[in-house]
Amino acid sequence: MGSTLIEKIIEKNTGLSKVTPGQIVTVNVDRVMIHDIFIPFVADKFEEMGFTKLWDPDKVVLIYDHLVPTSAVEDVRHFKIGDAFADKYGLTHVHRRDGICHQLMTEAGYAKPGNIVFGTDSHTTTYGCVGCFSSGIGYTEMASILGTGEMWIRVPETIKVVINGTLPSNVTAKDVILRLIGDLRADGATYKALEITGSAVDAMSVASRMTISNMAIEAGAKCCLFRPDEKTCEYSEVNLEDVDWLYGDEDASYCRVMTYQAEELVPVCACPSQVDNIHPVSELVGTEIDQVFIGSCTNGRLEDLARAAKILEGKTVACRTIVTPASRKIYIEAVKAGYMETLAKAGAIITQPGCGLCCGRSGGILCDGEKVLATNNRNFLGRMGTSKVGIYLGSPATAATSAIYGKITIPE
Amino acid sequence: MGSTLIEKIIEKNTGLSKVTPGQIVTVNVDRVMIHDIFIPFVADKFEEMGFTKLWDPDKVVLIYDHLVPTSAVEDVRHFKIGDAFADKYGLTHVHRRDGICHQLMTEAGYAKPGNIVFGTDSHTTTYGCVGCFSSGIGYTEMASILGTGEMWIRVPETIKVVINGTLPSNVTAKDVILRLIGDLRADGATYKALEITGSAVDAMSVASRMTISNMAIEAGAKCCLFRPDEKTCEYSEVNLEDVDWLYGDEDASYCRVMTYQAEELVPVCACPSQVDNIHPVSELVGTEIDQVFIGSCTNGRLEDLARAAKILEGKTVACRTIVTPASRKIYIEAVKAGYMETLAKAGAIITQPGCGLCCGRSGGILCDGEKVLATNNRNFLGRMGTSKVGIYLGSPATAATSAIYGKITIPE
Repeated sequence: MGSTLIEKIIEKNTGLSKVTPGQIVTVNVDRVMIHDIFIPFVADKFEEMGFTKLWDPDKVVLIYDHLVPTSAVEDVRHFKIGDAFADKYGLTHVHRRDGICHQLMTEAGYAKPGNIVFGTDSHTTTYGCVGCFSSGIGYTEMASILGTGEMWIRVPETIKVVINGTLPSNVTAKDVILRLIGDLRADGATYKALEITGSAVDAMSVASRMTISNMAIEAGAKCCLFRPDEKTCEYSEVNLEDVDWLYGDEDASYCRVMTYQAEELVPVCACPSQVDNIHPVSELVGTEIDQVFIGSCTNGRLEDLARAAKILEGKTVACRTIVTPASRKIYIEAVKAGYMETLAKAGAIITQPGCGLCCGRSGGILCDGEKVLATNNRNFLGRMGTSKVGIYLGSPATAATSAIYGKITIPE
Repeated sequence: MGSTLIEKIIEKNTGLSKVTPGQIVTVNVDRVMIHDIFIPFVADKFEEMGFTKLWDPDKVVLIYDHLVPTSAVEDVRHFKIGDAFADKYGLTHVHRRDGICHQLMTEAGYAKPGNIVFGTDSHTTTYGCVGCFSSGIGYTEMASILGTGEMWIRVPETIKVVINGTLPSNVTAKDVILRLIGDLRADGATYKALEITGSAVDAMSVASRMTISNMAIEAGAKCCLFRPDEKTCEYSEVNLEDVDWLYGDEDASYCRVMTYQAEELVPVCACPSQVDNIHPVSELVGTEIDQVFIGSCTNGRLEDLARAAKILEGKTVACRTIVTPASRKIYIEAVKAGYMETLAKAGAIITQPGCGLCCGRSGGILCDGEKVLATNNRNFLGRMGTSKVGIYLGSPATAATSAIYGKITIPE
């Protein structure tokens, strides 16, 4: 019997000829990511465990993003501890102000097709967009990896998701993953690997696939894998012949297969306050919103900003509209492409790349009774302000269109 | 005996043929500015005073800037109260996300040469850059103006400041006002009008004059006036013949005349933690800094960003560097001119226009023991973080040059 994509990655990594779901294996970690929120805990635990050096400083990436720029006096402590840890143990991959960790990990080439990567953040599933097995872990596990370079995992079962056809022009990858989460439910893929295929996925950019893998954790998935293609190779700067083993075999065993026809998909939102409370935008039309948020590691890429700019060109937003690019590189590209000029002229507030608003720390915090239509990945109670804020999650197209009217509106 | 510039403005406004310092007069207010921090207090007091309508809604400008975007759940309350007040009393000049109040008041044409304008912020002195008598007041006084359109003032004495010659290429308006504050001391111009003249001032842009009038309050000045010239008229969209009465008479009586030769001025900083603790940058060279801040209503204009971009072109900052344009318009101009691309490539964090960091609310808050070289207007204890942060105030040129080295450095 053949292997699924996640099984192939684990087999290649461990040298085992065949692994099966449920099997406990030890893998050699190719790269780890730690962000500013967790570095103090990781640093403490690392020394408490008695380690005196990193297994491989080149494989460790430290990224400041949740607290950049700082909005509280205690925030800087995280940078101080991170800088001291980096100095003491010889870390060279430290990003202090370049953008959101999940964007940087593939953008800067740290997470490559076929790699196994762990990070201290639940949305570490993102790097599956390039066919990398990536998953979030806690700080104790991270400290252990830093000392040993190894990590145990239980081989996950795989759910295969096939999306064939052509998406309607107002339906994006965000609508696809929201629909999928709605169908799976928030716990429907717990500890399972998602393997996403089909002609609609083949037609997607790596950026769009990233939106899907980013949110896979919202259905509980351990990881969310796309097989690398020419677009992946260009993005990740690898050769197709070096990654052509990254195809799930025809006779591999999947615990579930879900099939969608792209033409049947519609723009959707996750309604307050569960990510799997999915409704078509058509059911929500006219819902008044106080704020729109376009950005984050879920939807802060160039294609997202391009889409928003196209919709908002010559228009004026009717509610607070905040745009947060996912990285410095994307910010610069969006400035050069004229998107930032267009968005600013439409009345949007353009912030620095970072996690501020998505994690409820700064950059547009909401208060009791307010509603926001946001492109980020979680609408849990209290996520972007008080527990009485209503968060609707949707695509950049839905968000930008709704910003024009101050009401939830179907994108054109 | 002739009149000083402030006396002329008051005389024209009141219809009195001659006013003298110390005289109490009632003026007709041309425009008022209220920002988000104070609108709740103003609104309360206005109704407590029994007013039921504004004296003239067209003369009232409400600007949200200190809390844009919000970084705490209680922030939005200010917008709610502001929006409700605007609705109830028919305010039409409401800027919810366009930039910092002091920039917008002249940029959007609310404060014109010869006007009398009051605002609920100490740096309301800024509009003196176009020859407008503008000053900060409390919320009780503001509520009273809103109901009556009138305000009592004691005619201030005038200090004349003459700056002749040509500034060295690394000396800017910021260095001029810092030097002036150092010479006057923080209370040296208390309740006095400054009248700034001389060939060095004639050569300055309106933007540079704005930096000087903005910080005049740091010496206690009631206002800081520049006589309008062709540059002013172009900026304020008025005709020179309509404002040519705005010249202090040769035989006017000044309580003090201070004369500077521009060639003798050098780059300076206000050192922790008093605005009048002025030292030449040459005495501070090598002081390690953790952060640089370029922006604010003091130095967030296009010429400031241009200067910073020129210095940082092709360089990489060695410390956290935060850039905050003064308004949406300036942001857009800076994007189009390529400055934002240059600054972002150099590693700067570019925030939305607003007051966040300057007033210690968000956008780069510092912690105990840290030092920042900042272009804003106050270095009081606790202003941008804890009371153990050392704030050095300097020009954008000094700030940008120092960012390259992470140490205070004399600009080229």
